[in-house]
Amino acid sequence: MSRGKVLVASALLAVAGAASAELNQEQAERAVETRQSVLHLMGWNMAPLGAMARDRIDFDAERVATNADRLLALSKMLSDAFAADTRGNAVGTEALDVIWEQPDEFAAKIQANIDAASALVDVAAAGDEGAMREAIGRLGSTCGSCHDDFRADD
Amino acid sequence: MSRGKVLVASALLAVAGAASAELNQEQAERAVETRQSVLHLMGWNMAPLGAMARDRIDFDAERVATNADRLLALSKMLSDAFAADTRGNAVGTEALDVIWEQPDEFAAKIQANIDAASALVDVAAAGDEGAMREAIGRLGSTCGSCHDDFRADD
Repeated sequence: MSRGKVLVASALLAVAGAASAELNQEQAERAVETRQSVLHLMGWNMAPLGAMARDRIDFDAERVATNADRLLALSKMLSDAFAADTRGNAVGTEALDVIWEQPDEFAAKIQANIDAASALVDVAAAGDEGAMREAIGRLGSTCGSCHDDFRADD
Repeated sequence: MSRGKVLVASALLAVAGAASAELNQEQAERAVETRQSVLHLMGWNMAPLGAMARDRIDFDAERVATNADRLLALSKMLSDAFAADTRGNAVGTEALDVIWEQPDEFAAKIQANIDAASALVDVAAAGDEGAMREAIGRLGSTCGSCHDDFRADD
């Protein structure tokens, strides 16, 4: 299948909300790629903020504001990104089955991440460095809390 | 290197703006993963809009608005995502060298994408379906225009 056709197939799947439908291998791999893309970009944007909070690099309020906006946008993609249930597929994934077995608990973790990212956006706009450092820590905690329960250990 | 250490190393690289520095293999692979993540998510969010514009699926104004917001956020990540110059590294990539050889031309393509995504956000807020269809088409054209010049052919 061409890249274009795969994208359209994924799109149709997403729009139809076919979360409970069985996925073929290509759809399942595409779903894994989507959620890994969201999480990779969350790590990419979170890592410098964590390094600033730990004084490993200089604090850069402008970078905090930019990345906070990105992290909020990405957090809002998580729910859609994990809608496709790949439990029945042979895919390389760190996503644990409990994601789809306990959807309410998983949704609560996502909401905590959205709320913490939103709080960071707000304090970054206000410009107080101490508040930004605290908000970065709280946001990082929501990442870790979800990984603890819903991601396979390294 | 642990996932955490790789992320921090990537963060330091990004913050230092070490675009012209030579990348080690791990940094280069991480950079490719980052830009592919951005582009994968752009495709994920664009595909249903393209399918709507082509009447392959029902038009859903709410989905257009949601995905337009995401596409704008993602378009603003492109410049940072492509900052790391991987020309000297052996990595699997469709990114052509011309990206770093003609940075102004590449930056202009990115700006056209940002502008078109921003226009779609605006018309989605206004709620006119015809205007949304046109704006989806214009946004899609900016994707294709950049792929024509800066991405290897399939």
